Amino acid sequence: MNETGTTRNVNDLFRRACYRQPVERTPVWMMRQAGRYLPQYRAVRKKYDFITMYKTPELAAEVTLQPVDIIGVDAAILFSDILVVPEAMGMELHFLEGKGPVFPQPMRDDGDLSRLRPVEADLDLKFVMDAIRICRRELAGRVPLIGFAGAPWTLATYMIEGQGSKNFINIKKWRYANPDSLHRLLEKVTVAVMEYVKAQVAAGAQAIQLFDSWAGILDKDGFAEFALPYARQIFRSIDDADVPLIYFAKGAGIWLDLLMQSEADVLGLDWTVNIGEVRQKVKDQFALQGNLDPVSLFAPPQNIRQQVIKILEDFGAANGHIFNLGHGILPDVPVEHAQAFVQSVKEESPRFHAGSKK
Amino acid sequence: MNETGTTRNVNDLFRRACYRQPVERTPVWMMRQAGRYLPQYRAVRKKYDFITMYKTPELAAEVTLQPVDIIGVDAAILFSDILVVPEAMGMELHFLEGKGPVFPQPMRDDGDLSRLRPVEADLDLKFVMDAIRICRRELAGRVPLIGFAGAPWTLATYMIEGQGSKNFINIKKWRYANPDSLHRLLEKVTVAVMEYVKAQVAAGAQAIQLFDSWAGILDKDGFAEFALPYARQIFRSIDDADVPLIYFAKGAGIWLDLLMQSEADVLGLDWTVNIGEVRQKVKDQFALQGNLDPVSLFAPPQNIRQQVIKILEDFGAANGHIFNLGHGILPDVPVEHAQAFVQSVKEESPRFHAGSKK
Repeated sequence: MNETGTTRNVNDLFRRACYRQPVERTPVWMMRQAGRYLPQYRAVRKKYDFITMYKTPELAAEVTLQPVDIIGVDAAILFSDILVVPEAMGMELHFLEGKGPVFPQPMRDDGDLSRLRPVEADLDLKFVMDAIRICRRELAGRVPLIGFAGAPWTLATYMIEGQGSKNFINIKKWRYANPDSLHRLLEKVTVAVMEYVKAQVAAGAQAIQLFDSWAGILDKDGFAEFALPYARQIFRSIDDADVPLIYFAKGAGIWLDLLMQSEADVLGLDWTVNIGEVRQKVKDQFALQGNLDPVSLFAPPQNIRQQVIKILEDFGAANGHIFNLGHGILPDVPVEHAQAFVQSVKEESPRFHAGSKK
Repeated sequence: MNETGTTRNVNDLFRRACYRQPVERTPVWMMRQAGRYLPQYRAVRKKYDFITMYKTPELAAEVTLQPVDIIGVDAAILFSDILVVPEAMGMELHFLEGKGPVFPQPMRDDGDLSRLRPVEADLDLKFVMDAIRICRRELAGRVPLIGFAGAPWTLATYMIEGQGSKNFINIKKWRYANPDSLHRLLEKVTVAVMEYVKAQVAAGAQAIQLFDSWAGILDKDGFAEFALPYARQIFRSIDDADVPLIYFAKGAGIWLDLLMQSEADVLGLDWTVNIGEVRQKVKDQFALQGNLDPVSLFAPPQNIRQQVIKILEDFGAANGHIFNLGHGILPDVPVEHAQAFVQSVKEESPRFHAGSKK
């Protein structure tokens, strides 16, 4: 453990839960917790565009740390975007107001593969590593810092579709008509992501989450062939046994048998699965992260508390649960509701850990 | 069986498969098969708007029958829209070009419940019953005619959101903050849908499919409380033992244990499940309909054939499979690809039924 992790007040609930060790209460954080629902985030965002924010280490660090103090989460997650990797590979990236990220020149066939260059993470993505270093210094061990990347399938989907899509026709056309070249693209992306997450760990990231946000557009065979093996390859490449690995494959709960081959430490669950049933199936092989429907944060705080209790009861009195939403927090959620959510987990979870001692 | 079903050339593959009886080959039809991918449909649509088409029995019947001759499907499904029921309940409905159906005054709280009136299906939706009668006469028993309705959860979602939605915040707010009044809305819709499907059967519909297109936005408890019981109530109300009942709850394959409580004869499956694994679990309790990814119809015909073979192999040599897409056919699919899909099922499936005799 390095110098920043040795203070007395270290909150290591998240880390212990990732390794299914006993905790006094269930740790909690929220995907996209450094985001627009926070007035303090909006104040920064008013002055800078999204790209400037994640490319300026001081700004990225500032918003990364906001929810630690304001919401009281048990882990920070770096403010960044999964598309920095394709951008570093040479793809021009725009963020359009109200529309999100767009690649104006998406990849359309294997001729485009030559447009992609290898990523030297410490150089090409230095702004991320600098942000990690600032965050670790500022956090001073209060809570751990989670690094992340997009999983290759999800990045390739963006690179081919160019933006969000309703039916994902372009990547599926490619998949059915020319699967070998799609594998070549996925291999290139995988190498880049491996470099990227290794550099994050070297810079100080204390856990790594892979976001496979578009796993759920696939069929089961497609997930087994085009998504899972590349995510697994990345997890295998992180040989630091002190860094828990989280796989969040949205919409993939239906393929739990495949998720269990991912070689992650933690499976992130969206809200469509019953976390208790998943726990019965994965037993001691994985910790589980999730799984409150992010839309339920629009409900009155007393309803939020009921939903929290329901998930705690479903999971039961066992180790290995990191409370989270089943997807990112939505921009219009009242900040008091986010606070009520985190507070509910803190207040309701200790009785499920009554037999635990630190 | 009435007079139209007694001709010599009757194709009853679909019907037999629904009841898991032996067939010589797997029957096949496509959700949204009367649709824009067909040049003959577009020719009609050029002259009339969408609402005029489904409200004019002769036009609705014309496009209903097109895919029977052009594509060679084993069942016709009435051309209509699930939103005719909320419209008949008193909600103003617009179809916006390029945007789809919109309720300009969506329901926002239980005060709006009083806006809804009971449906007299034979009067309020006479145009549907007339279209069914024309279709039956024109089909003359060549293939059966499927009637359909939206399931209450999906209709209520449209009525509350007013249109398609990304996060379905309005209905979920209502669900968490005021579940009792949401149940009152669902009860009203259920009564209307029951009247509607009973009238369809009386007019000549030979099977009924309930579309629960937005089941998948729910969590498991929500599906068990707000979607499943209302669909089941409708299935129970259809007491004609000669009318197979199909429940297509998109995105609900993850809750197979709940789907098995639906009391339908057939479970419609989207493309995210492996149909062979589902068959192992449902055994002889249900026939299964599906489950090719509709996007795979953009692939070259030889790839479509491979996908068809894969699903036939997954299902195996057993009775009770109706081949279909996992969701509606997309508007830009080349018509030759739709034909190749249906032809592949017809050519590849007989060897999986080698032991069957009529």
